[in-house]
Amino acid sequence: MKFLVLNGPNINMIGIREKAIYGTMDYLAIIAMIEKEAQKRHVEVVFKQSNHEGELVDWIQQAYFDRMDGIILNPAAYTHTSIAILDAIKAIAPLPCIEVHLSDIHSRDAFRHHSYPALGCLEQIAGLGPQGYILAMDHLIAHCHQKNQD
Amino acid sequence: MKFLVLNGPNINMIGIREKAIYGTMDYLAIIAMIEKEAQKRHVEVVFKQSNHEGELVDWIQQAYFDRMDGIILNPAAYTHTSIAILDAIKAIAPLPCIEVHLSDIHSRDAFRHHSYPALGCLEQIAGLGPQGYILAMDHLIAHCHQKNQD
Amino acid sequence: MKFLVLNGPNINMIGIREKAIYGTMDYLAIIAMIEKEAQKRHVEVVFKQSNHEGELVDWIQQAYFDRMDGIILNPAAYTHTSIAILDAIKAIAPLPCIEVHLSDIHSRDAFRHHSYPALGCLEQIAGLGPQGYILAMDHLIAHCHQKNQD
Amino acid sequence: MKFLVLNGPNINMIGIREKAIYGTMDYLAIIAMIEKEAQKRHVEVVFKQSNHEGELVDWIQQAYFDRMDGIILNPAAYTHTSIAILDAIKAIAPLPCIEVHLSDIHSRDAFRHHSYPALGCLEQIAGLGPQGYILAMDHLIAHCHQKNQD
Amino acid sequence: MKFLVLNGPNINMIGIREKAIYGTMDYLAIIAMIEKEAQKRHVEVVFKQSNHEGELVDWIQQAYFDRMDGIILNPAAYTHTSIAILDAIKAIAPLPCIEVHLSDIHSRDAFRHHSYPALGCLEQIAGLGPQGYILAMDHLIAHCHQKNQD
Amino acid sequence: MKFLVLNGPNINMIGIREKAIYGTMDYLAIIAMIEKEAQKRHVEVVFKQSNHEGELVDWIQQAYFDRMDGIILNPAAYTHTSIAILDAIKAIAPLPCIEVHLSDIHSRDAFRHHSYPALGCLEQIAGLGPQGYILAMDHLIAHCHQKNQD
Amino acid sequence: MKFLVLNGPNINMIGIREKAIYGTMDYLAIIAMIEKEAQKRHVEVVFKQSNHEGELVDWIQQAYFDRMDGIILNPAAYTHTSIAILDAIKAIAPLPCIEVHLSDIHSRDAFRHHSYPALGCLEQIAGLGPQGYILAMDHLIAHCHQKNQD
Amino acid sequence: MKFLVLNGPNINMIGIREKAIYGTMDYLAIIAMIEKEAQKRHVEVVFKQSNHEGELVDWIQQAYFDRMDGIILNPAAYTHTSIAILDAIKAIAPLPCIEVHLSDIHSRDAFRHHSYPALGCLEQIAGLGPQGYILAMDHLIAHCHQKNQD
Amino acid sequence: MKFLVLNGPNINMIGIREKAIYGTMDYLAIIAMIEKEAQKRHVEVVFKQSNHEGELVDWIQQAYFDRMDGIILNPAAYTHTSIAILDAIKAIAPLPCIEVHLSDIHSRDAFRHHSYPALGCLEQIAGLGPQGYILAMDHLIAHCHQKNQD
Amino acid sequence: MKFLVLNGPNINMIGIREKAIYGTMDYLAIIAMIEKEAQKRHVEVVFKQSNHEGELVDWIQQAYFDRMDGIILNPAAYTHTSIAILDAIKAIAPLPCIEVHLSDIHSRDAFRHHSYPALGCLEQIAGLGPQGYILAMDHLIAHCHQKNQD
Amino acid sequence: MKFLVLNGPNINMIGIREKAIYGTMDYLAIIAMIEKEAQKRHVEVVFKQSNHEGELVDWIQQAYFDRMDGIILNPAAYTHTSIAILDAIKAIAPLPCIEVHLSDIHSRDAFRHHSYPALGCLEQIAGLGPQGYILAMDHLIAHCHQKNQD
Amino acid sequence: MKFLVLNGPNINMIGIREKAIYGTMDYLAIIAMIEKEAQKRHVEVVFKQSNHEGELVDWIQQAYFDRMDGIILNPAAYTHTSIAILDAIKAIAPLPCIEVHLSDIHSRDAFRHHSYPALGCLEQIAGLGPQGYILAMDHLIAHCHQKNQD
Repeated sequence: MKFLVLNGPNINMIGIREKAIYGTMDYLAIIAMIEKEAQKRHVEVVFKQSNHEGELVDWIQQAYFDRMDGIILNPAAYTHTSIAILDAIKAIAPLPCIEVHLSDIHSRDAFRHHSYPALGCLEQIAGLGPQGYILAMDHLIAHCHQKNQD
Repeated sequence: MKFLVLNGPNINMIGIREKAIYGTMDYLAIIAMIEKEAQKRHVEVVFKQSNHEGELVDWIQQAYFDRMDGIILNPAAYTHTSIAILDAIKAIAPLPCIEVHLSDIHSRDAFRHHSYPALGCLEQIAGLGPQGYILAMDHLIAHCHQKNQD
Repeated sequence: MKFLVLNGPNINMIGIREKAIYGTMDYLAIIAMIEKEAQKRHVEVVFKQSNHEGELVDWIQQAYFDRMDGIILNPAAYTHTSIAILDAIKAIAPLPCIEVHLSDIHSRDAFRHHSYPALGCLEQIAGLGPQGYILAMDHLIAHCHQKNQD
Repeated sequence: MKFLVLNGPNINMIGIREKAIYGTMDYLAIIAMIEKEAQKRHVEVVFKQSNHEGELVDWIQQAYFDRMDGIILNPAAYTHTSIAILDAIKAIAPLPCIEVHLSDIHSRDAFRHHSYPALGCLEQIAGLGPQGYILAMDHLIAHCHQKNQD
Repeated sequence: MKFLVLNGPNINMIGIREKAIYGTMDYLAIIAMIEKEAQKRHVEVVFKQSNHEGELVDWIQQAYFDRMDGIILNPAAYTHTSIAILDAIKAIAPLPCIEVHLSDIHSRDAFRHHSYPALGCLEQIAGLGPQGYILAMDHLIAHCHQKNQD
Repeated sequence: MKFLVLNGPNINMIGIREKAIYGTMDYLAIIAMIEKEAQKRHVEVVFKQSNHEGELVDWIQQAYFDRMDGIILNPAAYTHTSIAILDAIKAIAPLPCIEVHLSDIHSRDAFRHHSYPALGCLEQIAGLGPQGYILAMDHLIAHCHQKNQD
Repeated sequence: MKFLVLNGPNINMIGIREKAIYGTMDYLAIIAMIEKEAQKRHVEVVFKQSNHEGELVDWIQQAYFDRMDGIILNPAAYTHTSIAILDAIKAIAPLPCIEVHLSDIHSRDAFRHHSYPALGCLEQIAGLGPQGYILAMDHLIAHCHQKNQD
Repeated sequence: MKFLVLNGPNINMIGIREKAIYGTMDYLAIIAMIEKEAQKRHVEVVFKQSNHEGELVDWIQQAYFDRMDGIILNPAAYTHTSIAILDAIKAIAPLPCIEVHLSDIHSRDAFRHHSYPALGCLEQIAGLGPQGYILAMDHLIAHCHQKNQD
Repeated sequence: MKFLVLNGPNINMIGIREKAIYGTMDYLAIIAMIEKEAQKRHVEVVFKQSNHEGELVDWIQQAYFDRMDGIILNPAAYTHTSIAILDAIKAIAPLPCIEVHLSDIHSRDAFRHHSYPALGCLEQIAGLGPQGYILAMDHLIAHCHQKNQD
Repeated sequence: MKFLVLNGPNINMIGIREKAIYGTMDYLAIIAMIEKEAQKRHVEVVFKQSNHEGELVDWIQQAYFDRMDGIILNPAAYTHTSIAILDAIKAIAPLPCIEVHLSDIHSRDAFRHHSYPALGCLEQIAGLGPQGYILAMDHLIAHCHQKNQD
Repeated sequence: MKFLVLNGPNINMIGIREKAIYGTMDYLAIIAMIEKEAQKRHVEVVFKQSNHEGELVDWIQQAYFDRMDGIILNPAAYTHTSIAILDAIKAIAPLPCIEVHLSDIHSRDAFRHHSYPALGCLEQIAGLGPQGYILAMDHLIAHCHQKNQD
Repeated sequence: MKFLVLNGPNINMIGIREKAIYGTMDYLAIIAMIEKEAQKRHVEVVFKQSNHEGELVDWIQQAYFDRMDGIILNPAAYTHTSIAILDAIKAIAPLPCIEVHLSDIHSRDAFRHHSYPALGCLEQIAGLGPQGYILAMDHLIAHCHQKNQD
């Protein structure tokens, strides 16, 4: 099994600043932790991060051509403004996608409550910090097993 | 450690009808599964379900007097209308509360996108089905360990 | 055939006060009238009234377990605020439910124009006073006959 | 007693198409059924249907000059946009008018939930199909008897 | 000089009912009064009234082909909903059009505050009763004299 | 008979600038014209202009204590923002007040369409330029005669 | 004289937590203080508190059957969402009801600014802490004396 | 193949006035041009124009009874206000309908951006002037051929 | 102790007109009553009333320079429109200010429900008539004593 | 003559997935078809596709420096969110731009109804599938010929 | 060259309180600093400050009659509510006006983001503290030189 | 001291087109002018311009790693839509950022009034043309000196 872990704008700054909101673990440490958990589960993960909406769209499409099994997506600020990312997710359906947010977007600014990609994702996990990625991975694994059985 | 698993209106009908939205596992099976997972983690869980907004408020308050360590809350339909539940959560803070939804409320009716309790919760997990409760439990455990260390 | 006639908050005060809006027949007289009409039609009716949103949800669910054939529902003030009642109606579908209002809610305050339960009901009758319940009963009977023929 | 049964745009297409929404009985069959029920009740009914908002206004006014006793009105699509029909109803008050809809407009598109004519009507019946006209007729009869007694 | 006095839906009912809002003078008396005042000013006036939005559009267009000098328009209920009447007024510009309302629409229902035709008219007179037509006529005369001088 | 002609902010600049919107007649010329027309009708008029909302409120109240017979009010920019002027008009009711605007506020910026004082005035005249004041005066005279007869 | 002092959800937690918002006096101390002040004024007071919207409705109705003289109501979170409580207040009118809030709801979250029960209450006191109940009591006494004199 | 070319209010004034918006070709010239292009494509076209919303509804319905193959519809001002036209289009589905606008409604007034009939049409062409009708015709032909092949 | 009792526009007309809303006591009688109650409490009160928003701002600022101990403010119509008054209150903080309304603004027009000054005041009392000023005075006294103790 | 055919995000996935919405022809086939039609018309076309909003802006600007004669633009998801693309179109005006959409955006999600680029384009074609590009090309050719003649 | 430096409500309190928002320099120090900078640039400046909206309007008009060369305007709280100030600015155009705010209004309360006067000003400077006045002065000088050259 | 001067989409087209809005100085001339002014102040400036939202985010982050002292940011069209840029500014706080707009965005289209980056910037300068950059630079210098002193 092979998953894409795709992070949006400013996630590369996590752990450096605004620790009260996003925690103290930095981006590389998060990647290392996910990598380690993935190995435990015998799952291959590919990591991408970009501040460019278009690049996130490119990689979502590429996941389809690379025959990946699922996407763990943290669209960050683009969550609230990007119909293009939603359309990309729909364009590669039924390849499953789970939305993850480090902070609890539902208790922050009102303009952070709405999500466009959520309209195409299986589920949304918000506020669990880096652990959210592991939970998403576990659920993608279960989802894929389920699909294979059907 | 002792947690309250509190479910709101119509969750007791899960698995009986509307299986396309909520899955085929019924309420008792979900409880049994959570119970089993809790035992593995040496955690005590108490289960409550009510169709009454007031009763949910009562139990949230009671969790404080019973010196519980956290609440896993699925407010169901009251998610979108209950300021009383939000106020109850705030009244017992910093006792931690995590919001769980079986279905992905963000890709359903527009009136299901907004959450009042989210304004007082640590995080929100939506769309992972019964597994969402386990994830919330794992995170509550981590949160409590963290707090004890500080 | 067996129907639940379920009345929401303050319907028990009908005929005592605000006669200009709701008429002069009191709640017991309305029940007696419906009971009499039901006997003429060889239909069994069960009456419930509550000021509690949660209790209305409980009874809608119970109608399913009691194998009732339909619900005549006047959600009163909860019409405009209760997603929980809507979810209960959807949870027991295709058990048919008809929404009845004594007064014409569409010509009263703006906040009384919208109905959540209507999103799950077969139809809505507003402004016919107590006779609305009889009309709803007649239509439920026809609806059940139709369903049996299909 | 003499009533006007006034139908708005596209009601003449009922039973020909969109049977899932409006049922399989066509406009002439509905008229015949209403006619038959009216005879049983010794009531005279006049039928009018138009796709023209202005013609509906003309006929509502004419009902006043023809000394009719009431109007059973299905304004169809004009329900949601016609202040002119509301003004006509108010111009002939207290001649009573009851609003009927074949489908349950409250569970369809959001722009079908609001009614201008409802602001001038006695009541609204929605979703009972052709039977709605009979119910409205029964209530108009009762309303007229009541008025004569006062 | 030749003006069209064009009245919209239900103005033909003026003076018969709702006298508290529209006054006690009926439509024919208003016409006669305007006619008399027009003769004093040596102006020819043509009167039209219709409950049909389309007919009002027809007549506004016709005024252009009949080489009329101005239009005194009371669009009644269509004031608030008719873009078609606005477009007709714009289609015949710079033929001048003045909007008249018998009642003061700005102190009635909120949905009566906005006017589409006003976007194409020279001015709006509301709440002066039948005298509003005379004022509009006087101003149209002045406007035409002004235009001839330029 | 004695009327107050009360003008709001920037009306004193009329005729000096923005002639395309407000015309070329300046404030003093408008006053002189109204004065002359008032004399013809044997009516006394008092003129006030202020850029201060509070002063307009003061003068409206004073009109009551001075036993004036009516107010011709052009609230200018305060039309759209002043609840205080509305309250002043209501505080001296039934002393009649007519609202006048030189330009047609209904075809200008959207924020100029709504009027607070209109909720307490008899009528609104917009877009007739200085002639609007004369029309308002004529109608106030008629209104007062009417009242004396009742 | 006999009054009902009715408190809504989470008021029973007052003084235990969130002292910055609601003060340090707990619910029992507030009741004792009100009781003492009531005795000084020779007034009987009955205390009820519930987290259940329906129970608040029940007790408002019961106050009517118990021939109470007035209600001092703190609807707490239900202030902003409960049409049922408003309807209950209207159902027992003209039994007087005064709305009290411990905190100043008008300077807190936007969703706390609007009140449904206020549409049926005599007045609203917000932000005076426990003293608000005494002020409400004083005014109810004055109101009842006034009514007896009329 | 036989198509209805249906034009709404004020299209008959095209080419006479407002040439900056709608171009200089008049209605008859547009018809002649469409007729000529239709002959080249061996297609029969019937032309209707009306300022009456109801008449447009009548003709859309009639196209069904006349067994036409498609409708090229320019609803003009009714685009933004007519649910009746939308309902007519839905009533005759799957008879295909294409929406055409001479001007680019998306770059004009905000109230011209929304279209009700678009909810029932195959496509919308806006801003191509008279050529839009030919494009719509070409696409209807292709659509019909496609349907016959399926 | 020295308080400013500051009344906004049209409060000087209280008791003269609109007695149904504001009561029959006139402004001078209210002042006399407050004066008398203040003497009982050994408190000095200064009375100001103005129809000018700017003057209210001036006096709020002056209260700071005059070293007053608190302000009892009835901003009347400016409640709903004046950010300048809010800013003045904030500019003199922590000098305490209590907002008083004679009528219950929450059960009147929708545009009277919102308050800008409330965002800077300690509390709001609405609908208690002249007694509201006394209650505010009592609470200001308590507030000042409290502050001195801290 | 030389045109830029510019396609936005996810258009490169057309024909691979979501065929019900966008048809079965893939992106390369569409390009080939446009190329062939361009050759017939002796027009040179350059094709660009990007998932990056910024790249679309770059190329629109570049079209100006490359002295192209027009742009056929399908902004896809950026239609609804990109002011930057609108500004680019305005920055190169009067170089003509026509907006094309494969699907009928006006009958899809509400958030797909509004277009920013439309505010700077000549026209909009929506729902004609790949043929829309040919229609746009034909109209650009006509537009350029027209401009050369003027 | 001669400029008016016009400050709105509560600016006279600057430096006395709320130093976190507005800085520690008081109003007189700001004036002195501007005066000194003006002398360096050989520019005459006149200072006015008022808490009265009407007085600000008076002075803007007066600047025109005094043949001033420009206005530096800080409308403070009236920024967000005063159409009268906007109208005054438009009444004296093309006399140039620049809007200055000490704090960054765009990162404060939502109701402080919108500006009416901005609709008539050349530019807006927000958040630079007292230096904003100097910047505005420099730009007014440049603007005047530019105008003289044209 | 070292500042980043960062310009958003289409700023590279300045001076080439739309001179009425943005002035006649082109992008390179603006850069040269800023460079020259920077040298006078002994400040180093780095210039970046991009049409890509993501690239603007990249460079804002890079400014932090390059230990720059401040950012002068003109986000152009992204001002109104980019939460990603806001998040980048917050991620590098307290590195100071000043927002500059060549035109006065507050007097242009309504959708250009709101700014996301403003929520994280020190101040906003709009409508001063190229001089705005110099003013921002002067203020950044002052801000940095201030910070060093604290």
